[in-house]
Amino acid sequence: MQLARLIGPELKALLEESPAELRELLDDIHPEDVADVIEELDRDRAAKVLENLPTEYAAQVFERLEEGVQESLAEAMGVDVAAELAVEMDTDDLADFVDDLPPEMSLPLIKRLEELDADVATEVRELRQWPDTSAGGLMTTDYMWVEPGLTVQGAMEEIRRQAVDAETLDAIYVVDTDDLVKGYLRIRDVLLADPMAKVEEVMRLNLISVPPEMDQEDVARTLGKYDMNTLPVVDERGEILGVITSDDILDVMAEEQSEDVHKMGAIDPLSEGYFDTSLLTFVKKRAPWLLVLFIGGFFTATAIQHFDGVLATIAHLSFYLPMLISAGGNSGSQSSTLIIRGLAVGDIQTKDWWRVLSRELAQGLILGGALGAVGAARVTMAGENPTFALLVAATLISIVVMGCVVGGMMPILLNRVGLDPATSSTPFIATLVDVLGIMIYLSLARWLLLESGMGAFGTS
Amino acid sequence: MQLARLIGPELKALLEESPAELRELLDDIHPEDVADVIEELDRDRAAKVLENLPTEYAAQVFERLEEGVQESLAEAMGVDVAAELAVEMDTDDLADFVDDLPPEMSLPLIKRLEELDADVATEVRELRQWPDTSAGGLMTTDYMWVEPGLTVQGAMEEIRRQAVDAETLDAIYVVDTDDLVKGYLRIRDVLLADPMAKVEEVMRLNLISVPPEMDQEDVARTLGKYDMNTLPVVDERGEILGVITSDDILDVMAEEQSEDVHKMGAIDPLSEGYFDTSLLTFVKKRAPWLLVLFIGGFFTATAIQHFDGVLATIAHLSFYLPMLISAGGNSGSQSSTLIIRGLAVGDIQTKDWWRVLSRELAQGLILGGALGAVGAARVTMAGENPTFALLVAATLISIVVMGCVVGGMMPILLNRVGLDPATSSTPFIATLVDVLGIMIYLSLARWLLLESGMGAFGTS
Repeated sequence: MQLARLIGPELKALLEESPAELRELLDDIHPEDVADVIEELDRDRAAKVLENLPTEYAAQVFERLEEGVQESLAEAMGVDVAAELAVEMDTDDLADFVDDLPPEMSLPLIKRLEELDADVATEVRELRQWPDTSAGGLMTTDYMWVEPGLTVQGAMEEIRRQAVDAETLDAIYVVDTDDLVKGYLRIRDVLLADPMAKVEEVMRLNLISVPPEMDQEDVARTLGKYDMNTLPVVDERGEILGVITSDDILDVMAEEQSEDVHKMGAIDPLSEGYFDTSLLTFVKKRAPWLLVLFIGGFFTATAIQHFDGVLATIAHLSFYLPMLISAGGNSGSQSSTLIIRGLAVGDIQTKDWWRVLSRELAQGLILGGALGAVGAARVTMAGENPTFALLVAATLISIVVMGCVVGGMMPILLNRVGLDPATSSTPFIATLVDVLGIMIYLSLARWLLLESGMGAFGTS
Repeated sequence: MQLARLIGPELKALLEESPAELRELLDDIHPEDVADVIEELDRDRAAKVLENLPTEYAAQVFERLEEGVQESLAEAMGVDVAAELAVEMDTDDLADFVDDLPPEMSLPLIKRLEELDADVATEVRELRQWPDTSAGGLMTTDYMWVEPGLTVQGAMEEIRRQAVDAETLDAIYVVDTDDLVKGYLRIRDVLLADPMAKVEEVMRLNLISVPPEMDQEDVARTLGKYDMNTLPVVDERGEILGVITSDDILDVMAEEQSEDVHKMGAIDPLSEGYFDTSLLTFVKKRAPWLLVLFIGGFFTATAIQHFDGVLATIAHLSFYLPMLISAGGNSGSQSSTLIIRGLAVGDIQTKDWWRVLSRELAQGLILGGALGAVGAARVTMAGENPTFALLVAATLISIVVMGCVVGGMMPILLNRVGLDPATSSTPFIATLVDVLGIMIYLSLARWLLLESGMGAFGTS
């Protein structure tokens, strides 16, 4: 027996030409691979393929399709066929599917689900009350549970009975007659314990759980911290509502990460892939931020205009302006990146602001000193006099310190007032730092070169 | 029976004052919580706590400690005690632990491991041959396997025997006498099948596996794509080497994400948390990039100097310089963010460069047009003449298009030549875009205001 793996084109040809033959090969093919091909077929052909598959397998394929494809296929198959397929889906995927349908499709579907399997319909209703991005929105109700008073042998019978539907066998929860969770068993505990022992005697008590309203980012962090594959969702009363499996959390992490990265790049998070996003959507996600940043940039013009007299007297000051202010932008974006990421992984808390400030100050002084030395050397080689070199060095130290402090404090400030620190995006901080940088440079120039009488007017 | 959860300070007091009493409470406490407290104790007290715990529980706590803490505790406990604890660890965690030790500690430890359990020592040696960040480096050898010729009942006996050591029971692999993997069973298959059926008749064939040399980012992507909790690592011959569990992948994803985010912020990735990193390390990770960017910024000075004559004739051109070039930087960092993330999640391939170019061009034209209109209005309100407004509009369109194209193409180019696209970080692109932006603005100014004879010299 060989582990035959059909490659994409072969599978596609087979699906298009003789979907019925596919049934014989299903053992060899992962539903995800069938889902990949179905997404490339036209709607009616895709619907035909799904209808030709055994319902249970078709449900596994359907779960893995993208939202839009699910909706159009459900439309093509009609509510009766869709409902038959839906009852076989995992409840968490089913709830998401129903959520994404327009009401004129979801209402008849739920009605048909009620008739086919009232339990499934109730579970879906319960799951849908939680926001998509909460623990409740991620959980499935297909978990295994036993009563504490059963014997281990009795529990084994119960597990065998529930095993068909359960999404995971990683843990079996011990739930009493009041629906309260008392502990859990690993399957190995059941296999190894004395068959006559009581479940409550052998169960494990160190249960880590999350409340249904917990945000998915915190769920991911909890699962990662405790190195678990499943995490029960338990309400205030101690009632178990469902379980979250770590495969769902992998998707959440990738999603949350894209969101953070996009925000840091001053883009409204995209919900779809790059090539699946329309030009109009891109413009809508980018233009507002770009305009806000641009209008913020107006202040740079105002700031420079304010120093018109200084610039008119020493014209070559403007040569070095972009170079100096971008040093502030760069150090600011380094600091904000460090702090935004630290906040995201739970490494830094708002209350740590004082420690962050002192660290960023120290780093700013050292980094600014290094850049100041290099900058002073650069302008000296370009023929500027020592006072001008001093100006450049002093400007760089001040600007880099300012960049580090603004970049480090801004995400914490945003976090404090309840906004997502990732929106204090790199270019945002850069704009603020630009304005401050111009003011530092030209103020220092006025003071050192014009007012202090140290003698200026280098020979550029 | 109550699910008692000790809060941190209580647990700490207990560990410090009477570690022996802790044994009675262990059922209620997750090893991760004990690990958290141990990391705060001083070395000798922490070692004493570990020695007082039952070895198997101590191993679970030890696995969860940070590298540095593991090393110092191993030193405090001595090689004999450390080895006794080590044999009880999961093999993947054990291999990582041994890897991180200096040779003068790892060599005697491995020798002692050989004496205690030759099998474990061999497995650790095999695991250590793979790089940390490869599938081989992530896998554990503590998986379950049965022979294809066994009956289901025989397989059940085998599972019961192996269950104590296995890290996961998500899948039981079917391995023939040549060590080749033929398929797998889910525990539910074993529970539900006819006890007299042969394993090879009931096993599942649609096995998704990864080669040992696969990079951890691709492993995470595979696991996410197929929604699996465990992934077998299989070599070219078809021999199963180990399995990767999704809890380990959660850690990998968080790590890889931090790395990407740091690179995008022009920082060498940090291996530790913000507050665990020393000032010296921060300077080392930040200074080289800041200097490279600063020296890159020198070209802005050179570029402006090149247009000295234009600036001398129309001095107020410099007022708008930072505002205009930062529009290019901002649009460039939006584009690079989109493309870097698209490449990271596998949404964009190098071969798609042409499609990316055309999309970025289109977006650049629309976004540049919008900014151009706002910018022209801004300078008109500031009292500039229509030709100057035209200059600002034309500059913004050109600069934003250039920003989108450079920001979109640079990550793809870096990816093509085998570098990490995330290092084409936002501020890096900003520097390049700054220089190009200055050249566009001042060239257009010379042409429109000085050479075309359209009449210039606005009244700022």
